[in-house]
Amino acid sequence: MSVTAARGFRASGISAGLKESGRPDLGLLVADAPAAAAGLFTTNAFPAAPVVLSRLHLAGGACRAVVVNSGQANAGTGEPGMADARATAAAAGELLGTGPGQVLVCSTGVIGPRVKMGELVAGLPVAVEALDDGGGPGFARAILTTDREPKEVVVHADGFVVGGCAKGAGMIAPDLATMLVFLTTDAAIDPPLLDEVTRAIVGPVFNGLTVDGCTSTNDTVLVLASGGSGVEAAPGSRALAVLEAALGEAAEELARQIVADAEGATSTLVVHVSGAASADEARAAGKAVAGSLLVKTAVFGGDPNPGRLLQAVGASGASLDPMEVSISLAGHRVIEAGRVVAFDEAACAEALKEREVVIRADLGAGDAEATCFGCDLGYEYVRINAEYTT
Amino acid sequence: MSVTAARGFRASGISAGLKESGRPDLGLLVADAPAAAAGLFTTNAFPAAPVVLSRLHLAGGACRAVVVNSGQANAGTGEPGMADARATAAAAGELLGTGPGQVLVCSTGVIGPRVKMGELVAGLPVAVEALDDGGGPGFARAILTTDREPKEVVVHADGFVVGGCAKGAGMIAPDLATMLVFLTTDAAIDPPLLDEVTRAIVGPVFNGLTVDGCTSTNDTVLVLASGGSGVEAAPGSRALAVLEAALGEAAEELARQIVADAEGATSTLVVHVSGAASADEARAAGKAVAGSLLVKTAVFGGDPNPGRLLQAVGASGASLDPMEVSISLAGHRVIEAGRVVAFDEAACAEALKEREVVIRADLGAGDAEATCFGCDLGYEYVRINAEYTT
Repeated sequence: MSVTAARGFRASGISAGLKESGRPDLGLLVADAPAAAAGLFTTNAFPAAPVVLSRLHLAGGACRAVVVNSGQANAGTGEPGMADARATAAAAGELLGTGPGQVLVCSTGVIGPRVKMGELVAGLPVAVEALDDGGGPGFARAILTTDREPKEVVVHADGFVVGGCAKGAGMIAPDLATMLVFLTTDAAIDPPLLDEVTRAIVGPVFNGLTVDGCTSTNDTVLVLASGGSGVEAAPGSRALAVLEAALGEAAEELARQIVADAEGATSTLVVHVSGAASADEARAAGKAVAGSLLVKTAVFGGDPNPGRLLQAVGASGASLDPMEVSISLAGHRVIEAGRVVAFDEAACAEALKEREVVIRADLGAGDAEATCFGCDLGYEYVRINAEYTT
Repeated sequence: MSVTAARGFRASGISAGLKESGRPDLGLLVADAPAAAAGLFTTNAFPAAPVVLSRLHLAGGACRAVVVNSGQANAGTGEPGMADARATAAAAGELLGTGPGQVLVCSTGVIGPRVKMGELVAGLPVAVEALDDGGGPGFARAILTTDREPKEVVVHADGFVVGGCAKGAGMIAPDLATMLVFLTTDAAIDPPLLDEVTRAIVGPVFNGLTVDGCTSTNDTVLVLASGGSGVEAAPGSRALAVLEAALGEAAEELARQIVADAEGATSTLVVHVSGAASADEARAAGKAVAGSLLVKTAVFGGDPNPGRLLQAVGASGASLDPMEVSISLAGHRVIEAGRVVAFDEAACAEALKEREVVIRADLGAGDAEATCFGCDLGYEYVRINAEYTT
């Protein structure tokens, strides 16, 4: 049910003709009443037009609707692209009677071309007509580009629900930009607190995810809270703690689904870093390992290679005591006190064939920790990214 | 002639039995009298033992000899590895009558295993015996690991010579670490000034080079000046300016040879960034482009893909004005004023097949510029790095 599992939300997904394949390409998510809303956006210096617009519309901390198109990213499109994003919000706001400022816009697809506005504007009334409180899966499908599967999650908390869906992972595909994540809840929470929780709990999960190290122009995470459950997540309340845990769980589950579906990947890398001086440094070390080409290809090839792990941790910039660092690979201790040690290479190579490979690193420099998600890199990644021609 | 082109240097390269292949694996470079010496070392938090030792021995700004072994990197080897590096310097210092403090040590090869010290110590007298003022090419060959070709350069300046050789490029190979670069000159220059020139002129060239983004545990650049030409590169002199230009030219030529020989690469990427707020930012943007998996695979596949260039520049962290950025790819203008523009895609795809692909980006944010070197990424990179098993 993903984004419509929480009370107060309806959604739809239709084929508007934006994708040449004819697959669903227009998603609409609507809150029955203004929902508290928080967002996280790409740090790329070339944010796509819908990113610029949505950031602006989110300033009030509330929204009624999110329009998502797949097929064209509306990035690298200059002022005409901004006009297209504004026209999209205006058309949806008009149809829904909310005004444009209550509408957020997301796009994903090829960078450069303008959105097929004729098709999009013609499709919007159809999407409004199709809105349904069971429309989450249709919405989750309409936002996909080269994903193999939709990515959905529902977490049942104490009296309320957190649901969500996502697409993509970094700029994994032939210039099809973006990770988009939508989380909804029927807990009640004030916008400034929702913003805080989103930055503190949801942000780090997706910042710890790496597929190809390429920060897209369109990355967007939106969290909407309808209050439909009547459960009030007030500052300091138990309900707030439960909501934080549920949002964290939902985000982590979507992150796992994203890397599992990363193009060309055959296995997921889960990198736990402990003993770091700060959570940011733990994440930096974890991403350095999960994002290392040498680690990714070694896992793909089933080669237990401690030197590459040592190299990646050492180059991450995280504070560490070289004589205290220990690292295990798929359950085998390969680095002790900063030295490569003997281990059962055949058994470790066998363990690297699992669908999920866990790497644990302790930096010996503090108490902070973090978990990062990545994937291996093999021929299929090269094929997908090289053999596609524009 | 590489490192022996300048007067005052002799070198040799022999097979000591450190590599299982039997190929040359022990190189010795000797200055007839103490040479002014400057070094640049890896920033990896796990520096190899020889890096730690050489940094220490360089503190005086002079040296008589450099011992390089290939086969084992002496990294991730803890205190025993430090003892091995010290024993290497002691053995060479004894044979050459210089004492250990005048000897620098470099290692390259597999991370983890200890250096085969029996073979190395037995080989040193043979290497000393083989020292020759035409020994540069032999030295250049002995330092290689998985390189296809030695990398050598000689620049004839006004009354003096700069020569050099290099191996590797980042951690390109199956855990065979390292880029090593050795530059020699017979210009006379005081050690503090040589250090300054090395940091200002030579460092940026190699810091602008990326093959796989992995900073090795062993990276070392050494610059030795014998003074044998009698040309004095005094502060403010014309000779100093000529020396700076010659060192820069030699460094850039070696950098080009390194990326041209990068494993699995079919083409070299040369990324010129202009209009940057600082040279560091220009280099950051250039490396982001040259190091982007999506750019590398697109070039490999002959796919002219402006979106990936926009993404990489935008995510580099360099200051830029999104509305002022322009980018050309292999001679074709693909981004103007921050927008993807129409270009002759067929002609551009054809141009991507050249051995060297030039990308020019102007950030519209200042007057600084930099040139970075990289390479494409294809199936061969994956094969080399995945199918090797320890």
